Amino acid sequence: MSIVLGPHQYGKAENRIVRVYRDSPRHEIHDVNVSTALRGDFDAAHLHGDQGTVLPTDTQKQTAYSYAKEKGLTSIETYGLELARHFVDDVAPVTGARIEIEEYAWERALVDGSEHDFTFVRKGQEIRTAAITVEGKGDARQEWVIGGFKDLVLLKTTGSEFHGFLTDDYTLLQPTDDRIMATSLVAQWRFTSTEIDWEATYAGIKQIMVSTFAAVHSLALQQTLYEMGKAVLEAYPFLAEIRMTAPNKHHFLYDLSPFGVTNDNEVYNADDRPYGLIQASVLRDDAPPAGPAWTIAGGFA
Amino acid sequence: MSIVLGPHQYGKAENRIVRVYRDSPRHEIHDVNVSTALRGDFDAAHLHGDQGTVLPTDTQKQTAYSYAKEKGLTSIETYGLELARHFVDDVAPVTGARIEIEEYAWERALVDGSEHDFTFVRKGQEIRTAAITVEGKGDARQEWVIGGFKDLVLLKTTGSEFHGFLTDDYTLLQPTDDRIMATSLVAQWRFTSTEIDWEATYAGIKQIMVSTFAAVHSLALQQTLYEMGKAVLEAYPFLAEIRMTAPNKHHFLYDLSPFGVTNDNEVYNADDRPYGLIQASVLRDDAPPAGPAWTIAGGFA
Amino acid sequence: MSIVLGPHQYGKAENRIVRVYRDSPRHEIHDVNVSTALRGDFDAAHLHGDQGTVLPTDTQKQTAYSYAKEKGLTSIETYGLELARHFVDDVAPVTGARIEIEEYAWERALVDGSEHDFTFVRKGQEIRTAAITVEGKGDARQEWVIGGFKDLVLLKTTGSEFHGFLTDDYTLLQPTDDRIMATSLVAQWRFTSTEIDWEATYAGIKQIMVSTFAAVHSLALQQTLYEMGKAVLEAYPFLAEIRMTAPNKHHFLYDLSPFGVTNDNEVYNADDRPYGLIQASVLRDDAPPAGPAWTIAGGFA
Amino acid sequence: MSIVLGPHQYGKAENRIVRVYRDSPRHEIHDVNVSTALRGDFDAAHLHGDQGTVLPTDTQKQTAYSYAKEKGLTSIETYGLELARHFVDDVAPVTGARIEIEEYAWERALVDGSEHDFTFVRKGQEIRTAAITVEGKGDARQEWVIGGFKDLVLLKTTGSEFHGFLTDDYTLLQPTDDRIMATSLVAQWRFTSTEIDWEATYAGIKQIMVSTFAAVHSLALQQTLYEMGKAVLEAYPFLAEIRMTAPNKHHFLYDLSPFGVTNDNEVYNADDRPYGLIQASVLRDDAPPAGPAWTIAGGFA
Repeated sequence: MSIVLGPHQYGKAENRIVRVYRDSPRHEIHDVNVSTALRGDFDAAHLHGDQGTVLPTDTQKQTAYSYAKEKGLTSIETYGLELARHFVDDVAPVTGARIEIEEYAWERALVDGSEHDFTFVRKGQEIRTAAITVEGKGDARQEWVIGGFKDLVLLKTTGSEFHGFLTDDYTLLQPTDDRIMATSLVAQWRFTSTEIDWEATYAGIKQIMVSTFAAVHSLALQQTLYEMGKAVLEAYPFLAEIRMTAPNKHHFLYDLSPFGVTNDNEVYNADDRPYGLIQASVLRDDAPPAGPAWTIAGGFA
Repeated sequence: MSIVLGPHQYGKAENRIVRVYRDSPRHEIHDVNVSTALRGDFDAAHLHGDQGTVLPTDTQKQTAYSYAKEKGLTSIETYGLELARHFVDDVAPVTGARIEIEEYAWERALVDGSEHDFTFVRKGQEIRTAAITVEGKGDARQEWVIGGFKDLVLLKTTGSEFHGFLTDDYTLLQPTDDRIMATSLVAQWRFTSTEIDWEATYAGIKQIMVSTFAAVHSLALQQTLYEMGKAVLEAYPFLAEIRMTAPNKHHFLYDLSPFGVTNDNEVYNADDRPYGLIQASVLRDDAPPAGPAWTIAGGFA
Repeated sequence: MSIVLGPHQYGKAENRIVRVYRDSPRHEIHDVNVSTALRGDFDAAHLHGDQGTVLPTDTQKQTAYSYAKEKGLTSIETYGLELARHFVDDVAPVTGARIEIEEYAWERALVDGSEHDFTFVRKGQEIRTAAITVEGKGDARQEWVIGGFKDLVLLKTTGSEFHGFLTDDYTLLQPTDDRIMATSLVAQWRFTSTEIDWEATYAGIKQIMVSTFAAVHSLALQQTLYEMGKAVLEAYPFLAEIRMTAPNKHHFLYDLSPFGVTNDNEVYNADDRPYGLIQASVLRDDAPPAGPAWTIAGGFA
Repeated sequence: MSIVLGPHQYGKAENRIVRVYRDSPRHEIHDVNVSTALRGDFDAAHLHGDQGTVLPTDTQKQTAYSYAKEKGLTSIETYGLELARHFVDDVAPVTGARIEIEEYAWERALVDGSEHDFTFVRKGQEIRTAAITVEGKGDARQEWVIGGFKDLVLLKTTGSEFHGFLTDDYTLLQPTDDRIMATSLVAQWRFTSTEIDWEATYAGIKQIMVSTFAAVHSLALQQTLYEMGKAVLEAYPFLAEIRMTAPNKHHFLYDLSPFGVTNDNEVYNADDRPYGLIQASVLRDDAPPAGPAWTIAGGFA
């Protein structure tokens, strides 16, 4: 028996890069948070402190900033692919790279009803995400792209039931045929191609998920999520699967009866913790293998 | 010399109340975070643990929820006034009440291009705020209403200069005639009346502030803030003053010259800390006294 | 009637300075977050964008870092006084300065039971705070020092009652003679001198507050706070007053009776929101006036 | 080709349970955050909204609170095992359960130098963690226990070098033979047995990791992490592996030379973002397979 080094990776996390396009009077802005991670033969650094194969994380940072100009930064999926390919192709000890990106959306300020050329207001709603993995040099190169979002908060004030559930000795919950259903959705979808209109696809997926959440009469958050995922896969044949993490943000009907006040599903307490947590995925049954696409941080949480 | 009790107040903070109007198929939603604080003769509780004059914070909570139905919850300023008046008028030992409210905005989900009746998406951008103070019972009653917002993040990619500043031995900063200017604005305005169209006024103030931020060619964040405040006061004669807290969210031009890459105000690092912090107010010179309007938590930070 | 500039100030917030003393093999470390704010004649910057009297916030930052070496950084109160005096004395347009500091504590790592010379573990518990205000140049100089802490989380599993409170139509709360009492305490005390053993005083005040919280049989959080404040003022005659903000972190006894399980004050739900919030101050009746000591951000929240 | 349901699980996240032992005048307290997740045959809920096999998340919550009394809550690993076994054994459709727990430490308040019986101060430093997975009913039952901590912040003011690294066209970093090394460590270790003295083991692992961090003269954070992991595995033969995630919390030497001030590794800027991020694991080469031990949320991030 002996003790050995296991899986490992390293990189520079959370580079906050803002890229402005100002080639015309109407500027464009892309505001991202980029994390790089490299995998490869870095055993000597761990075992002996020998950095000979280790490209500093500072260098990864410099590259990420410079590529925002050299290669451009419009779609985060394309930018992430450029960066990952560079590390794998051009840095000898690197066998794999993973680039994770968050993008913060801005909308134009309105002046006298018109969109301003160079003033922006940070848009809320969801944060767009991407996770790009490239492994193998030259002809052996393989690529996986995951798109997604987080923090998309959805709520419906009716059209949601919950009953007929399994019960045991610890079950106190009462069934309901009309409740608020709310979640802060995380969704990630796996592409089977890199020849994609990333922007149109993102907008389309979001619109399908929101409208399906609205349109489905819900008997369970699980059911709603499944319908949302299925609708996305039906619309976009180049998606292999979609994974969703959905906290059930409980809104408890407040008991006003002690005060002689009727509460006909009108006043709720939005509770913090605990919350239900549903995680579900929807797949094509002929989806190609995911490989390391979902591997976050080399196997780490 | 002796040791005595100083200023004090108590209440229930952060009641997360969601109010749904469902009188028609097209539901409305108001999502708020309400904090109550009462001032009055509570010395015995502090000095001897005698609760005889202390209305429990739990009771304040129950009242806040019940009033969301009894009095309604549409404009937060009106709801806050109702709640504050109740505590001062109806609870004998209470001489003053302060209600602080945050409101989270939602927009309707779109289904086939149409707004859905009962499904909503949490809107980002700013959080709307209100702070209502009522003091004195019956004819002695006085009221102050402050409206506002926080977390309104604004950015312009050009149209901002900074030069001609004072220098000393510790000054390294170089002047610039073209920089990114960005802030996450907190603004609060004091009303001189309670007969206000709160909703239209809020929308109008926000629009004026955003468009002034865009339109003013800036020589200093201070100057931009002053112009924003002045424009608001000019538009709404029933406002006595406006106070703004504006972090200067630094976007540092990234030096790409070591890589032979030109960076013509295109690639920036959005830094976290430290940040400049500008605080400024704009007043009418005949504004009535602010009294306790701005007193947060009875003199506490 | 005209519109005018009101109170204003500006500075550099959250300079994260770490100062190491390495004059002997046994290093010392001071880890702080420093915010500076200057008050004075900066009207032209607001009204016309003229920066001629404005010392850049970048210069304030440089000074804060340099003073950590030039003047040293051991007690945050002394360091803050040095910095504030400099800005008021040496920068012509500056009439007042406020320095706010947080300090994060570290303790030495233990190796074979001995304290290591240069390895530290971040200590939790409270964050120490200071707020220094200097106004007036030369002979007109006046100084105020406030010490304090935040995030000191205290809990007692018994020795706390709550009953005999005022009731009204919205009162549902039941009295109790045995509950968990817990808070996350913010305390700030105002010194009447600057000739203080800051380190010993800080340690003494914290110890008195913790032990008084433990020793007082509580009939109300208000009563406990008052006793804590009084004990501090009795021990340190050079303190004028102490202000405390104390959320009542509710621990609700969990109802296990549906499962036939007895819960004799053993299992609680630690709830997040809402929470009670008590704010109280204890004073000497001959305390000198507070002046701008408590004025945060020039009158801003 | 068809679209199908993929991996899924559901549960109740973040139950904030406080358990007091008060059988003697010297109370004990355990303060935890418990998340449950169940895996099994819940397809009908997703596909048709049929809840017949779904034990509500509310029931999982009730069980978690009741078990804190019924089974007791001392070591979180034992409590998590009891809970997971119950769900798998006693709820027919459940084939696997995962329980994730955080524990917040408290220390006794000191009164006149003595530990108080029932008053506690929240201890900072690290948050202890556990993740328990149980799969299979009856004789088929398999169990995996992971212990760990997060937020252990370590810093050494010297004894850390970084040089000899790989360079490319984007490398600007200068080598150093004396820097601050700091991290906020996350560590998780996998047990190969459930017959463990959990408390003594936890304390021992933490002590070994801290003292190794101190004692190793570091040529790379990677090397330090490997030595820390190896020392833990050597001390505890019942551990199969340890995984570590370590942000390199950069402390940049501040340039005071423009002010004529010498900075001999004395004044640093503690930067926020970006940061290096090292992830590494150390294994026994005969470790049993990890199975689902590390699978967070059924394959989800």
